[in-house]
Amino acid sequence: MSHVFTTTKRVEFRDTDAAGIMHFSAYFTYMEEAEHELLRSIGSSVVLNAGEETVSWPRVSATAEYRGPVRFEDEMTIEVRVKRLGSRSVTYHHQFLVNDQLIATGEITAVCCRIEHGEKPSSREIPAEIRSKLEVFVDPTLTDAS
Amino acid sequence: MSHVFTTTKRVEFRDTDAAGIMHFSAYFTYMEEAEHELLRSIGSSVVLNAGEETVSWPRVSATAEYRGPVRFEDEMTIEVRVKRLGSRSVTYHHQFLVNDQLIATGEITAVCCRIEHGEKPSSREIPAEIRSKLEVFVDPTLTDAS
Amino acid sequence: MSHVFTTTKRVEFRDTDAAGIMHFSAYFTYMEEAEHELLRSIGSSVVLNAGEETVSWPRVSATAEYRGPVRFEDEMTIEVRVKRLGSRSVTYHHQFLVNDQLIATGEITAVCCRIEHGEKPSSREIPAEIRSKLEVFVDPTLTDAS
Amino acid sequence: MSHVFTTTKRVEFRDTDAAGIMHFSAYFTYMEEAEHELLRSIGSSVVLNAGEETVSWPRVSATAEYRGPVRFEDEMTIEVRVKRLGSRSVTYHHQFLVNDQLIATGEITAVCCRIEHGEKPSSREIPAEIRSKLEVFVDPTLTDAS
Repeated sequence: MSHVFTTTKRVEFRDTDAAGIMHFSAYFTYMEEAEHELLRSIGSSVVLNAGEETVSWPRVSATAEYRGPVRFEDEMTIEVRVKRLGSRSVTYHHQFLVNDQLIATGEITAVCCRIEHGEKPSSREIPAEIRSKLEVFVDPTLTDAS
Repeated sequence: MSHVFTTTKRVEFRDTDAAGIMHFSAYFTYMEEAEHELLRSIGSSVVLNAGEETVSWPRVSATAEYRGPVRFEDEMTIEVRVKRLGSRSVTYHHQFLVNDQLIATGEITAVCCRIEHGEKPSSREIPAEIRSKLEVFVDPTLTDAS
Repeated sequence: MSHVFTTTKRVEFRDTDAAGIMHFSAYFTYMEEAEHELLRSIGSSVVLNAGEETVSWPRVSATAEYRGPVRFEDEMTIEVRVKRLGSRSVTYHHQFLVNDQLIATGEITAVCCRIEHGEKPSSREIPAEIRSKLEVFVDPTLTDAS
Repeated sequence: MSHVFTTTKRVEFRDTDAAGIMHFSAYFTYMEEAEHELLRSIGSSVVLNAGEETVSWPRVSATAEYRGPVRFEDEMTIEVRVKRLGSRSVTYHHQFLVNDQLIATGEITAVCCRIEHGEKPSSREIPAEIRSKLEVFVDPTLTDAS
């Protein structure tokens, strides 16, 4: 049975725009913040010092679909599931709800990378400990849809 | 023959992050800025007072794929094409290049809407004058690929 | 005896920059978020529908002094006090602490305004109910220092 | 005779807020962008590799005063002067104008620092070459006023 990571975020004023609603780019930052909370909840971080090297998660793709607007001070519930867990990458699936209404969905795919100062990031296998903790969030029903 | 709208943007410091590169969410704001420049170049705006009503373009989807990082003060060339021009919506296709290297692509789909103060936006046909000017940017080779 | 409004904020990744620290402009958005939380805690909002008119708080000045850097995922405590409560304006004083170390201070002065659609904001007296609730946060020791 | 560094910036949509105007925190990012343009204009950068070390300019204070709103697509002229040039720090003075009307002023003080990977920044004297180029922007009439 898969788990859902759930968090809440209030729409901040800086994220609204002159159309009176949250700017479409801000959903991506809230998705990232939810992902970082998920990683902290499993005892990890998006930037992890694993022994002598730093492990981080550069993004290779990001998508969002918008069904309706959200406004300043709206409280959004963000549900995060793992759509795909590869050996070196993970795709998070996010649902934004306000008052139980789905207002947006989005996905971010990140690749596990070794980061060394002054070097280009190079992909590596997801550390086993993180992998096993991410597995509980894999939702097999997402694989085909979306 | 289709036209390409081209603009350049320098990576601003506020758009970089602690990984030393431009934050993945910032690509969306640069795509939007390129779209707004395109609209100004055809004598329009993303918020247009057309007679008694306001016409605007809420987003229904946004995607980006990242091939490599960009850094502070890199000069990006952004090429904008129209992938699909519907009766009420438009999909812009963006390519980001640094030193002639493709570093990211992205798409934004926006719906032409009538905006009245205090009312929900409602979709409407793209005004004929704007439509004819957007048509020159339609690139038929994009329709199948993505 | 004056009250202090206290909240905590974690440094989000989007607010860091390529120097590896929180961008200096982000302190202003966190100050604003703390102010909005304070207003919600007294049953108000930065945008308030008071009978037939909207009351809001445009800013007339903002300052920050930085004593040290904060980094991604640092948990900041923000203490908000009212430095000056005029008949039409309020000056908030903010202190940022990480691990009990003062890392920044800042002030925002906002003017109470009547907002009508399509009109310029015009200043008005702070509504009595809000005023009495803000008074408890006035810290007389701040008036001379700063 | 002192020089003024002048640049123009159009208000971008992402910088507006639900009050329909540019968010007060965005002025700081535009001040920074103007400062970076000034530094590039004198052949420098806010992050400079000077021989074996990196020189950068952490901020110690930032202030803004707002006289009136600016809106989406307004074209702002930003005038930058140097208010104070110390041996290790510089205070920039910024004026924002729209249609020749002063709409905001602001100041940023930055300290010249040596940055080494993994170390705390430490202040150093402004390199002579940069100093002599900044000197032309010093406006002695700003010293007492503000």
